[in-house]
Amino acid sequence: MLNPHLGNGSPLGLHRVIEPIGVLPQAAWILDSRPEIWPDEVRIRVQRLNLDAASFRQLFEAKDGNPEKIRAAVLDIVATRGKMQNPVTGSGGMLTGTVEEVGPDSPLELSVGDKIATLVSLSLTPLVITDELARWDGRSEQVPCEGHAILFGRSIAARLPDDMSAELALSVMDVCGAPALTHRVVSTAASASAAITASEADPVGPIVAIIGAAGKSGSLSAAAARKAGASRIIGVVPHEAEAQILSAATGSDGVSGLVDEVVIADARDPVGASTAIAEAGGPADVTVVCVDVPGCEGGAILATAQGGFVIFFSMATSFTAAALGAEGVAADVTMLVGNGYTPGHAQLAIDLIRSEPGVRGIFQRRIDEHSVANTGVAKTGVANTGVAKDRG
Amino acid sequence: MLNPHLGNGSPLGLHRVIEPIGVLPQAAWILDSRPEIWPDEVRIRVQRLNLDAASFRQLFEAKDGNPEKIRAAVLDIVATRGKMQNPVTGSGGMLTGTVEEVGPDSPLELSVGDKIATLVSLSLTPLVITDELARWDGRSEQVPCEGHAILFGRSIAARLPDDMSAELALSVMDVCGAPALTHRVVSTAASASAAITASEADPVGPIVAIIGAAGKSGSLSAAAARKAGASRIIGVVPHEAEAQILSAATGSDGVSGLVDEVVIADARDPVGASTAIAEAGGPADVTVVCVDVPGCEGGAILATAQGGFVIFFSMATSFTAAALGAEGVAADVTMLVGNGYTPGHAQLAIDLIRSEPGVRGIFQRRIDEHSVANTGVAKTGVANTGVAKDRG
Repeated sequence: MLNPHLGNGSPLGLHRVIEPIGVLPQAAWILDSRPEIWPDEVRIRVQRLNLDAASFRQLFEAKDGNPEKIRAAVLDIVATRGKMQNPVTGSGGMLTGTVEEVGPDSPLELSVGDKIATLVSLSLTPLVITDELARWDGRSEQVPCEGHAILFGRSIAARLPDDMSAELALSVMDVCGAPALTHRVVSTAASASAAITASEADPVGPIVAIIGAAGKSGSLSAAAARKAGASRIIGVVPHEAEAQILSAATGSDGVSGLVDEVVIADARDPVGASTAIAEAGGPADVTVVCVDVPGCEGGAILATAQGGFVIFFSMATSFTAAALGAEGVAADVTMLVGNGYTPGHAQLAIDLIRSEPGVRGIFQRRIDEHSVANTGVAKTGVANTGVAKDRG
Repeated sequence: MLNPHLGNGSPLGLHRVIEPIGVLPQAAWILDSRPEIWPDEVRIRVQRLNLDAASFRQLFEAKDGNPEKIRAAVLDIVATRGKMQNPVTGSGGMLTGTVEEVGPDSPLELSVGDKIATLVSLSLTPLVITDELARWDGRSEQVPCEGHAILFGRSIAARLPDDMSAELALSVMDVCGAPALTHRVVSTAASASAAITASEADPVGPIVAIIGAAGKSGSLSAAAARKAGASRIIGVVPHEAEAQILSAATGSDGVSGLVDEVVIADARDPVGASTAIAEAGGPADVTVVCVDVPGCEGGAILATAQGGFVIFFSMATSFTAAALGAEGVAADVTMLVGNGYTPGHAQLAIDLIRSEPGVRGIFQRRIDEHSVANTGVAKTGVANTGVAKDRG
């Protein structure tokens, strides 16, 4: 119930921080996870936690794969901290559930009964677990769970669509920042290019290179680039198996490809990767890095035309390697940190899954591969699967 | 002399890489430093090396400050690798010298006899030392030196201006990427804002926050932001002494300030820093991070308006902290990796020094402080001096 005696909260959730005072909820050691909501908050009845892969792997290894001990560890973290933030990895994950109460000042446009996924990390989400995780086998990062969680004014949540499994929807939402920002940047480049060539009969859209195009964030980004007006999309993959997956994926017309050219190259080899992209119709006006392996900065920079853009979605990106790498080769490229949030990102990604059977096929394949593996550890976070954003 | 038997080189200098073959010169263990130039190269008669501060500090500490041993270590590195790249820090520095020979295909627009500074790192510049560094006392990163160095087609060099000391010019060029990119981003934001408010009588330029505004890159970026059309500039400094330096610095009219508001805040405290910037007229449309201390990402993101830009020039920036930080607070901000190269960057910065006595005063002060110190180690790289880009 809404407690009228609570004062005005902060949209960032500062009022939920118990220790240390004054830091953001993500940096806090302990959050206030009480069920009473502030006027701009929302309370969720939790159904499932999706632990961040890095967090689950750490717990799995630290407890030698013992389900009982892993379960106890998660319960202890949540009871102690008021949130599921792995103290070793610092990461959390996301959750799904049902909206239970909406404060009168909440800007999130949610209604009681909505089935939603949270798109802000569990590492900053007040959480209480009430079922001792009795239904969790401790063998996968998918955690059936009862309890409640709190969303702040500036949290992000998305309604789960009716026309796809929760697993698919979550898997899409997990990487939805990539297609949204790719769409924005390619649109901007396309407008600039259209303005320049306005006097010509046939303005040509930007050339886009997607490094890790057969992965989840990569395939979504390819579809987003097409929608935003890319004239040519070059998909870079690390080996033949991925090339076959990507070549088989068709675009929205079901006939032409999701990408125009499939290139096999080692993204960590600046000269090799950029040469391969150049030979496939590059350099690119926009290069999107979607593979979670270190050392891809140089290749992406060299593959990009002067005046172009590089968007780094890989969490393995080194800030200094990007900054010094561009300077070292006199590359006039605008390099963007892949912000996981762009307004409307979840909806854009879900819509792309609906309209692009090729992308949906890639996601379904990744999900199936994942469930074949015995534990959730096997596939998640493996280099070169294109899982750019296993955040949380 | 130009050797007509040499084949076509690569503008990136790939033909100078001896080991391992196929990598970029910066990643190479050994470069070919022969004096004969390829058709698009330039040979420089070296006068002075400016070792990267991190590199000199490492050598100084490893050799217990013994000048003889430090000198021997630098000579050994250059003789072994064909370039001055510290094997521990990976960094190099820059050099000054005189153009000795220009290949017929060089795009650098240099002439024999030009006095120049290289703006690409020593870590990728072929170098031979011929005087055993006899004139270097081993006590500062300024190394008088005889020998030759090679510039590639895609290297960057700038003529040293006649109207200021080489020390001042180098100090300006070392951070010239920051004002150039700030100018570009603020100009873009100003055009967008002008377009939106075109129907209004008084279009208002963007609000800019500079974190570390009393430092070298920060003060230059403030001046660049003003020139690009900023309507209000908020300068953030860590303590009262820096606030006094910044308050005393005037803009180009000699009357109004280099910045409009001086704010004392700890940039590592997201809530405190962003609140202080908000109270000084924020949130900012463009926030520029120029302090080399870790943990400034959150404050910069929170200080920035939705739809705004954050430019990270600090080499202490964490890619993941920026990406996850923005997502965690649903911040729709475009985050740029501060590319050290933008065409015309050196000229813009030198022109700002000429036109802005306040900025020139800040640089001169930093140089004087530096020479008061007994060794070059004392001041260089100290946190919060605003030296954002001590690269190399």
